[in-house]
Amino acid sequence: MIVILGSAALDTLATPFGRVERTAGGSATYASLAASLFASCGILAVAGEDFPADALDLLRARGVALEGLDIRRGEKSFHWEGSYGYDLNVAATLKTELNVLANYHPCVPPSWRKAPYLLLGNMHPGIQREVLSQMEGEPFVFTDTMNYWIESQKETLMEVVSRCDVLLVNDGEARQLIGTASLLSAGRTILSLGPQAAVIKKGEHGCLLFSDGDVFSLPALPVEPVKDPTGAGDSFAGAVAGFTAYQNRADLDTLRRALVLGTLMASFTVSDFGVGGLRPVTPERLMHRYLDFRRSLAFTELSEEIRSLQRRG
Amino acid sequence: MIVILGSAALDTLATPFGRVERTAGGSATYASLAASLFASCGILAVAGEDFPADALDLLRARGVALEGLDIRRGEKSFHWEGSYGYDLNVAATLKTELNVLANYHPCVPPSWRKAPYLLLGNMHPGIQREVLSQMEGEPFVFTDTMNYWIESQKETLMEVVSRCDVLLVNDGEARQLIGTASLLSAGRTILSLGPQAAVIKKGEHGCLLFSDGDVFSLPALPVEPVKDPTGAGDSFAGAVAGFTAYQNRADLDTLRRALVLGTLMASFTVSDFGVGGLRPVTPERLMHRYLDFRRSLAFTELSEEIRSLQRRG
Repeated sequence: MIVILGSAALDTLATPFGRVERTAGGSATYASLAASLFASCGILAVAGEDFPADALDLLRARGVALEGLDIRRGEKSFHWEGSYGYDLNVAATLKTELNVLANYHPCVPPSWRKAPYLLLGNMHPGIQREVLSQMEGEPFVFTDTMNYWIESQKETLMEVVSRCDVLLVNDGEARQLIGTASLLSAGRTILSLGPQAAVIKKGEHGCLLFSDGDVFSLPALPVEPVKDPTGAGDSFAGAVAGFTAYQNRADLDTLRRALVLGTLMASFTVSDFGVGGLRPVTPERLMHRYLDFRRSLAFTELSEEIRSLQRRG
Repeated sequence: MIVILGSAALDTLATPFGRVERTAGGSATYASLAASLFASCGILAVAGEDFPADALDLLRARGVALEGLDIRRGEKSFHWEGSYGYDLNVAATLKTELNVLANYHPCVPPSWRKAPYLLLGNMHPGIQREVLSQMEGEPFVFTDTMNYWIESQKETLMEVVSRCDVLLVNDGEARQLIGTASLLSAGRTILSLGPQAAVIKKGEHGCLLFSDGDVFSLPALPVEPVKDPTGAGDSFAGAVAGFTAYQNRADLDTLRRALVLGTLMASFTVSDFGVGGLRPVTPERLMHRYLDFRRSLAFTELSEEIRSLQRRG
């Protein structure tokens, strides 16, 4: 089982391809929908009574345990309003209303405290730390974060990072966290902060996995249409944690494969607004997309041809 | 044999990692050095008598035929001065002196006119067209170009594109040429202009190959140090043409493999200033880098695990 901490939000999203108002979102929502395709998981988040019933239904239909979802009667959900230009890698935040998130202190349900996997989704690092402290076993911990926390809560964030097993950040955040232009340096330096592995997400340009002298490089799946990138990183992280829990091991090969599935999940997410892209995902559709992806990456082994060049001198 | 048209230049290059003055460069120089590792080739270019003797020696040592290199006594080589910031994907042109290039009309040596492969390196499309017209067989044609020609010589460029087999452009150029933000649309639309394949180079983010409903996606090799990106695209194109000629076929699988070798060659090029990165490349070093690259891309097949999810329902 994976405990998934994060936000449950109402998002208002504008991209060049449309606009939606107050749709269900948040890092915990996206990550849970993705992870639940692979393993049982529970969502640890706070919402207001305005959190959409159809999103709750979708989480339930996916088997996501909801005991950790604190729905506050008479209060409003965290609200984010963002817009994207044609460069869908960059979001502009137009409005943030913390609402229920303003004084949230999560309480991990007692039956979840010995869960073997924990995903600390993008969230105030202080809250991520509270959850870490409530866990009673020694869970394998994935941590996601964002530029805002690197700027404003670096010390607490570094403590959380030092206690996690896999850190997931995007390319700009990796550079910002480590203070270097080089992604290779950033990825390797993250490993010296505590995690056994660092995942750098590059949006439409794919992702990198660093671990103990090893680098894995994976392009994104070229897909169209891309309507809304919101939640791509969260669903990527959810699939990575979900597959790791499903396999119940976190060796390098498993993490590489988890990144492949994270990439596929993100490609579903961006295909529609909000959680609409994740809604139709089934193992069958995942298989089709996986086979497309594998085909797009394949090339025939080249050693023999290069060896011939060597012989030719 | 591959005939390689392009510039032979004296480059002054500044990056955050250093500066070199009037070093040998030019699209034909980089492409020939790369292609010659795989197949015999001849360089078709014009230079002044200031073109460095050590660059000529290097071309000769690699077996590049020089009958097509027109060295004009008493004249000066084409000169480019450029600088790069920390985003090495973007070059700022500080100075361009055409010199011998101002009134260059190439003459393909008679013994080269039936060559089976032609690489039209980055160059005025009018000159690319002149060379196309002088070829007597029906060579397989690779064409490279740049934003400057798309802006200023689009009509002539489109004619050259319509007569080539493989077009290689970078991501910005593909978007500019087709007038779309989507690389997938750009790649597919290029195929409707004539070429059987389109290669979109994304610098540190890898490359894409489009052909007849098929997309191939390859990340770049993460390497350090990256000192100078000048010539990366030219040496990429040279290796792609070189491997195709070496295999003497241009089916999709061969083109995919050619892109792998183009990626490796570009990774050598960026590791030092000017042609310094290509100088030490041998088949042995290529093999080492290939094996590193292959390892960085590998993941274990996932079909069985996804099928289990399907069965689990």
